[in-house]
Amino acid sequence: MNKILIVGFGNVGQAFFELFHEKRKLLGLEDTAIYEISSTTYGHIKNPSQLTIDQIKAGKLSVERQDATETIRESEADIVCEFTQVNIKDGEPASSHIRTALECGKNVITTNKGPMALHYEELTGLAMKRGVQLKFKGTVMAGTPSFNLLKLLPGAEVQKIRGIFNGTTNFILSEMAKGKSFGECLALAQSMGIAEADSSMDIDGFDSALKAIIFSKVIGWSKHNLGNMEIKGIRGISITDGHCSSVLKLLVSIDKEEASVKPTILSRGDPLASVDGVLNAVEITTDTLGKIISIGPGAGRTATAQAVMTDLMEIVRTN
Amino acid sequence: MNKILIVGFGNVGQAFFELFHEKRKLLGLEDTAIYEISSTTYGHIKNPSQLTIDQIKAGKLSVERQDATETIRESEADIVCEFTQVNIKDGEPASSHIRTALECGKNVITTNKGPMALHYEELTGLAMKRGVQLKFKGTVMAGTPSFNLLKLLPGAEVQKIRGIFNGTTNFILSEMAKGKSFGECLALAQSMGIAEADSSMDIDGFDSALKAIIFSKVIGWSKHNLGNMEIKGIRGISITDGHCSSVLKLLVSIDKEEASVKPTILSRGDPLASVDGVLNAVEITTDTLGKIISIGPGAGRTATAQAVMTDLMEIVRTN
Repeated sequence: MNKILIVGFGNVGQAFFELFHEKRKLLGLEDTAIYEISSTTYGHIKNPSQLTIDQIKAGKLSVERQDATETIRESEADIVCEFTQVNIKDGEPASSHIRTALECGKNVITTNKGPMALHYEELTGLAMKRGVQLKFKGTVMAGTPSFNLLKLLPGAEVQKIRGIFNGTTNFILSEMAKGKSFGECLALAQSMGIAEADSSMDIDGFDSALKAIIFSKVIGWSKHNLGNMEIKGIRGISITDGHCSSVLKLLVSIDKEEASVKPTILSRGDPLASVDGVLNAVEITTDTLGKIISIGPGAGRTATAQAVMTDLMEIVRTN
Repeated sequence: MNKILIVGFGNVGQAFFELFHEKRKLLGLEDTAIYEISSTTYGHIKNPSQLTIDQIKAGKLSVERQDATETIRESEADIVCEFTQVNIKDGEPASSHIRTALECGKNVITTNKGPMALHYEELTGLAMKRGVQLKFKGTVMAGTPSFNLLKLLPGAEVQKIRGIFNGTTNFILSEMAKGKSFGECLALAQSMGIAEADSSMDIDGFDSALKAIIFSKVIGWSKHNLGNMEIKGIRGISITDGHCSSVLKLLVSIDKEEASVKPTILSRGDPLASVDGVLNAVEITTDTLGKIISIGPGAGRTATAQAVMTDLMEIVRTN
């Protein structure tokens, strides 16, 4: 029996809860159950499997509130899903949650970019030392194939990565290409729920940068971090070049030596130029295939929950 | 020790031979060796590992010529790589090679579309019955992720597939969009080695159709075959619509009930519209992610050899 503890029950946690129960039979997961939820908003819920999301939110079966780290330590769960908010400063409290779970010999799935971008070597090292798995597909392009594409290309040497890793800024730039101002497009994105009230993580390029760092660590390019890479966002940008032969994108560019996020003019013939709206994309250049490209949603409830299901199946299949 | 028998030593066989030796150490394949080659052109070569391609072609170490089926039956190899030419009528001789190998309890990797499109159920059933693996990534989009993307999306329900599965016709259509005639573009493709002298498999849509059938079988949509799907190629086509708001593509379209290959007008906003030249692409629509797209080379020596390496690693890792 695999027992799952969910830490953080916002959009991602709720979407995973729903998708897990929807796909459980199809995936042969009858022996896996969501055993416990730890939420700062809804409390500490044991055996939530029989409840609806609304019942969980209403506090049914919620037991005494507890610090999440304590819950992780005391839990019988062998898989901890970390879905709390991103904190770009030190990755807390997510990093402590993940660290505690790994130290207790539990597998971890996270969609939280902070811990993976800031403490990649420490956390993956700890997982290896304890003989458990640490999975984080959802941190880059949600469930859309991104760094996990490399599993389908054994032996291929990665030479370069280019990407559009942030849907909010890509939406804003796509709208601006129609002739609107930055302010108008940001307001539109906020009214549509595409941008948050405080959208600085997106607008100033940090969300893209964290994803660039995680992608490069997976490849083994370990030197890039927030302190040494060029990070430039799109705040207040204007598109003066109105002709239709080129497109402005917030482009992530990584190779072994350099990493950057910055507004970049692409020619219309560039395959990344036609990636519009909230879509994300990655172009991977390898020695055996040249350039391959993956395009799809980079955020959203179900798209992120798919990433968690992908990680979960890898843990369950190898356990 | 894994022993590989290569049947068919044309472009794909030679490219795989080279890539295997280039990547062998990196992939930890010291315990796997190319043990034998059976070629109608170069003869039957034992222990070719120490030879160069030129030495093999010159007939060094070639022993008495033998029927490939007999070689497969007598070989100590436990992995047979089938790289002979496609025959759309009955899939022979490749189908017999694969059948023989599976019956002898050997794993099979093939890049040959004929057997997989024409005899999918029989061959996969035989592999299952004998407890061996039958791998065929290279049949659709070479090493570029195509149907194997579904491994990264456990639980996702596939609703629809659209694809550009033939690089030759996509090159011709891309060139025609610049104002040239079909005949000019076909001649150009032939002069560049992109189209063969007899390019009817590509031009008339059969190459795309075989790939569509294989893709749909992998998903579990078993009803489609060459006899019941709509297949229309681009022979003698003209592009009268010269304005830049739309693009003509030879589009594969599949769902559970219908499958077709036909010239299709796409709007410029369609992500498949910007897939130009010899590139291939697939768009997979699922319940959890909506549309995801994979773009990359669909043919070529090394790109196809990458597919074989991908298949090989799956066999070696699970053996």
